[in-house]
Amino acid sequence: MTEAIRDLAHLSHVELLTPKPDESLGYFRELLGMEVSGEVDNSVYLRGFGDYERASLKLTASEHAGVGHVAYRTHSREALQRRIAALEAAGVDGRWNQGDLGHGAAYTFRDPDGHRFELFYESERYEAPPELRPALKNQPQRYPGRGAGVRHLDHVNFLALDPGENRVFLEQQLGMRLTEQIVLDDGAEAGVWLACNQKSYDMTYTRDLTRTRGRLHHIAFFVDQREDVLRAADIFLEHGIVMESGPHKHAIQQTFFLYTWEPGGNRIEICSGGFLIFAPDHEPVVWTQAERAKGQAWGMQTVASFHIKGTPSVPEEEALLAGAGR
Amino acid sequence: MTEAIRDLAHLSHVELLTPKPDESLGYFRELLGMEVSGEVDNSVYLRGFGDYERASLKLTASEHAGVGHVAYRTHSREALQRRIAALEAAGVDGRWNQGDLGHGAAYTFRDPDGHRFELFYESERYEAPPELRPALKNQPQRYPGRGAGVRHLDHVNFLALDPGENRVFLEQQLGMRLTEQIVLDDGAEAGVWLACNQKSYDMTYTRDLTRTRGRLHHIAFFVDQREDVLRAADIFLEHGIVMESGPHKHAIQQTFFLYTWEPGGNRIEICSGGFLIFAPDHEPVVWTQAERAKGQAWGMQTVASFHIKGTPSVPEEEALLAGAGR
Amino acid sequence: MTEAIRDLAHLSHVELLTPKPDESLGYFRELLGMEVSGEVDNSVYLRGFGDYERASLKLTASEHAGVGHVAYRTHSREALQRRIAALEAAGVDGRWNQGDLGHGAAYTFRDPDGHRFELFYESERYEAPPELRPALKNQPQRYPGRGAGVRHLDHVNFLALDPGENRVFLEQQLGMRLTEQIVLDDGAEAGVWLACNQKSYDMTYTRDLTRTRGRLHHIAFFVDQREDVLRAADIFLEHGIVMESGPHKHAIQQTFFLYTWEPGGNRIEICSGGFLIFAPDHEPVVWTQAERAKGQAWGMQTVASFHIKGTPSVPEEEALLAGAGR
Amino acid sequence: MTEAIRDLAHLSHVELLTPKPDESLGYFRELLGMEVSGEVDNSVYLRGFGDYERASLKLTASEHAGVGHVAYRTHSREALQRRIAALEAAGVDGRWNQGDLGHGAAYTFRDPDGHRFELFYESERYEAPPELRPALKNQPQRYPGRGAGVRHLDHVNFLALDPGENRVFLEQQLGMRLTEQIVLDDGAEAGVWLACNQKSYDMTYTRDLTRTRGRLHHIAFFVDQREDVLRAADIFLEHGIVMESGPHKHAIQQTFFLYTWEPGGNRIEICSGGFLIFAPDHEPVVWTQAERAKGQAWGMQTVASFHIKGTPSVPEEEALLAGAGR
Repeated sequence: MTEAIRDLAHLSHVELLTPKPDESLGYFRELLGMEVSGEVDNSVYLRGFGDYERASLKLTASEHAGVGHVAYRTHSREALQRRIAALEAAGVDGRWNQGDLGHGAAYTFRDPDGHRFELFYESERYEAPPELRPALKNQPQRYPGRGAGVRHLDHVNFLALDPGENRVFLEQQLGMRLTEQIVLDDGAEAGVWLACNQKSYDMTYTRDLTRTRGRLHHIAFFVDQREDVLRAADIFLEHGIVMESGPHKHAIQQTFFLYTWEPGGNRIEICSGGFLIFAPDHEPVVWTQAERAKGQAWGMQTVASFHIKGTPSVPEEEALLAGAGR
Repeated sequence: MTEAIRDLAHLSHVELLTPKPDESLGYFRELLGMEVSGEVDNSVYLRGFGDYERASLKLTASEHAGVGHVAYRTHSREALQRRIAALEAAGVDGRWNQGDLGHGAAYTFRDPDGHRFELFYESERYEAPPELRPALKNQPQRYPGRGAGVRHLDHVNFLALDPGENRVFLEQQLGMRLTEQIVLDDGAEAGVWLACNQKSYDMTYTRDLTRTRGRLHHIAFFVDQREDVLRAADIFLEHGIVMESGPHKHAIQQTFFLYTWEPGGNRIEICSGGFLIFAPDHEPVVWTQAERAKGQAWGMQTVASFHIKGTPSVPEEEALLAGAGR
Repeated sequence: MTEAIRDLAHLSHVELLTPKPDESLGYFRELLGMEVSGEVDNSVYLRGFGDYERASLKLTASEHAGVGHVAYRTHSREALQRRIAALEAAGVDGRWNQGDLGHGAAYTFRDPDGHRFELFYESERYEAPPELRPALKNQPQRYPGRGAGVRHLDHVNFLALDPGENRVFLEQQLGMRLTEQIVLDDGAEAGVWLACNQKSYDMTYTRDLTRTRGRLHHIAFFVDQREDVLRAADIFLEHGIVMESGPHKHAIQQTFFLYTWEPGGNRIEICSGGFLIFAPDHEPVVWTQAERAKGQAWGMQTVASFHIKGTPSVPEEEALLAGAGR
Repeated sequence: MTEAIRDLAHLSHVELLTPKPDESLGYFRELLGMEVSGEVDNSVYLRGFGDYERASLKLTASEHAGVGHVAYRTHSREALQRRIAALEAAGVDGRWNQGDLGHGAAYTFRDPDGHRFELFYESERYEAPPELRPALKNQPQRYPGRGAGVRHLDHVNFLALDPGENRVFLEQQLGMRLTEQIVLDDGAEAGVWLACNQKSYDMTYTRDLTRTRGRLHHIAFFVDQREDVLRAADIFLEHGIVMESGPHKHAIQQTFFLYTWEPGGNRIEICSGGFLIFAPDHEPVVWTQAERAKGQAWGMQTVASFHIKGTPSVPEEEALLAGAGR
């Protein structure tokens, strides 16, 4: 990045699909400690105590698990226009919608793998109702003291047939920057981590070994301390939530992680730690096949399910069409 | 901020003056766990394990304690030129110097209160020597496992006759944004917190109640966990280091803090926690006189010395001249 | 202690009196994360998730705040008989009662300062109802994931006219051992810490500067990590609970502490850390007046209220009678 | 346990054998943060900052890795005599030796599996030299602020042909109590956890699947916080120490653990957490084969090496003789 022209401000929210809306809601509200901030049709909107917007999670009842869309907020109206112009110049098929509860009109399109994205600028600043008003005025909402107590949505990890293709798309069309990647011995990119701000990443693509388009690997919520992740594990244990992997520390990005399956069938990560990237000229860190074979930071080998399981981000036929029609 | 045009990338380093260079060096190396990365004349350069540049602390032997200068790195050469143009247009008296060890030519000037700033772009990426090479390639240097183990320089707090005047200067000349402030009943700004990136602040001015120009309140180094701050307190206790205040949580910015006096006489903070600011249209949080009177987050009253003691950032006569001549 | 004859097994429970039973119950259940395990007349019984007996707190509606009684469980029936014999031989006025919910008949008496004690052996092992059944069978109850999540009752701190007199009583009549004490320059014992097992203390007496008999200073509940105490402070902050002092580390016993006032007016400590005493021939650590003047471990001075405020452990007239009649 | 007659006070120290004495010493001193407190012949004595005796680890240069002996201190001279009488009455072949540096004459014998034990009472209370004197007088030694900073020796885990046989021996001859055990479907005891005080265990036997007598599985050192275990993992990572398993939480005893291999070839655990056992009538927790198959507390499966690898506690021929001759 030679100039500070990043038009995206931050990852704003994710729409998660669940065939078990009540159980999923219980997971996010009671075990993750999120609050409901709205309800429209088949969707419930939830938020972490540190989210400044109305919601970071839109939980939509659906026949299948998966993700509906991910949304980024831009730095300004002009930034939004610039991104749309870039997308249209590249022949991406986008359209406007009226936006979810809590934000204005959004421009929606698919990435090369078929995952649905939205960009918007107009956003409602969250005003906590009296019972959720925080003690400190620099915090959007009261800390819940319930469950894991997640602060905010942290990142999304999509599966993709070709992470490299999607990486180029996010760099060129959205102005994001690559911070770390896995490059296999044959030159293929097995994983890419991108950021649009000083977080070291908020979007990841890893290879879909099942050769299916448009699937979700996981979404992640942030807690302040590594100890909070350990405490979350204690809480999940008591509630029969399957923990797929962790708590442990990733070698890539050094995120301290715990992966669970929410009752609707989506993989959810509770994460902490990692680091910020201050360098304006940060060079992407490239991990080789051999380096990846070493396992996670402290030596734990990744469980097999981690490389295979995912949930569709949109119904399969739609994804296939999207991939074809792009 | 209506556009993403922030020319400053991040706070880069601080030059700290000490009349007890050996004892100060021992404090930063053994108790904070920093590494020496260079030595020139009367200055020793030090770094936290997460600093990507060569040094974040230049420790200079001097007759008195205080700060020599603070330095910001810009996003690009163009960004540096834009800031210089703005400073010169505003009649600020600046000049180039050849830069410290580890970075290129710097443009130096004073803020309204007389503290010396430097801006530069060219910077040497730190390459760890073999004995400090990290196990994970996305980390600049081995984690020391010694003392507090600070990750990086976090922020600087200057004292100033008029924090508001300096706040305007940083907003207008440097493109920084105000995130929080204390506004007294008479309208005076008793404290201002500014940021140039998604950290919630990296520069603070609070009122100098002694009516002295150009003094330093403290500089702060970051550790990853609140528990690391508690552990640092245990270590300082064992080494007879005076802890002025903390560990506790600030109401403003919610930083988890511990203030100590390094042997040379400068106040040093070990901090953790706080939060990032993702909103591109973040509105500054304004704290009133009454709100400040409540004490810190969990109720601790601030000790008297905290409001009075400081160290000169430059020799007094020079500061007075600078303030006058600006 | 020349032999391993300690007849008391552990501090079992405390009866706390409150003029605001509903608000107090809310504090212990929602903010400390305790569970209700019974209700009889004006008393509600509560427990931490790690308490193996039915209850560690009996909360009794009363006209005034204070403590009703503290109870120790003995190692065996024989140990209970030995203690009663010792008490009776010393002329202490004791009597049997039928016991609280969850334990058998108790022998009750007063210490020299007038605080009511109970000793018993027969105790009901807690069986968690289905909704509170733990995931791991070596834990009495599910970890609540709510509020501070206290594990168990940790210790009691009584105020007394003469801590030394009460120390001798506990050593000689109850077989407890002194582990630390404050001895003033005039030889008076300003504070004594006693234990009946490998915890470094579970009973403390400190001087009542108001010269009132039979008062409570505080009772303390244990959490596993220092970070849990910090998190508890965040939760108390959000609920308007007054935090009198902390989080900080005591010099004496090194307990990491936070003192709050529960709504009924009793001082409650959330604590962690400290250490176990393994030495069978441990020598009491004696703190001088000068050493105490240094403040807490990391230098914080104790707030004035800490030395003055307390709550009666029994109605005053009763306490005075008890003190006189013993 | 019907009476409070436990004659053993606590696990005192372990003699560890290493074929790489310099590298092993570096591991314990620099990475675990222990201090050297003596040196005699081929042995170096080390201690954690919280150990009240002179040493908790005797590191002896040897041809092979393994354990020389483990030592328990008794509650009194009388308690020591009682245990010796019980051992002799049971026909155990014991003898006196002059004791290691730091303690008096010890009575030594082997358990049924051939591991060497020592019992003693006379012990030297550690007096820190000036450079290691602690700031707080209730602490034996300065907290090192180096490496993991272990507080004290926590427990020993021996491998044995028949854990049940050794469990009976420790209960009957040493007066220890069983707190948890694994009982397989065929009735065999695959693991037993015993304690001699309110710690939930300080001695463990698990089945030696290689059918070798007298081997060590691991010894464990305690740190105060779970976060300290995570930090230790970061430190081990930087120094190329192999981490076999963890950080994670055991289901049995709920210990938060990290297993590493010290350079000499012995498995060393860094642990924290767990709980105390207050109940004088604690019933052993029995884990079935099916329950063990569930993995550790948060679901991690135990690595294969954990069940196989061990180090001899004494030269094999000696162990075989001991087993035969007992």
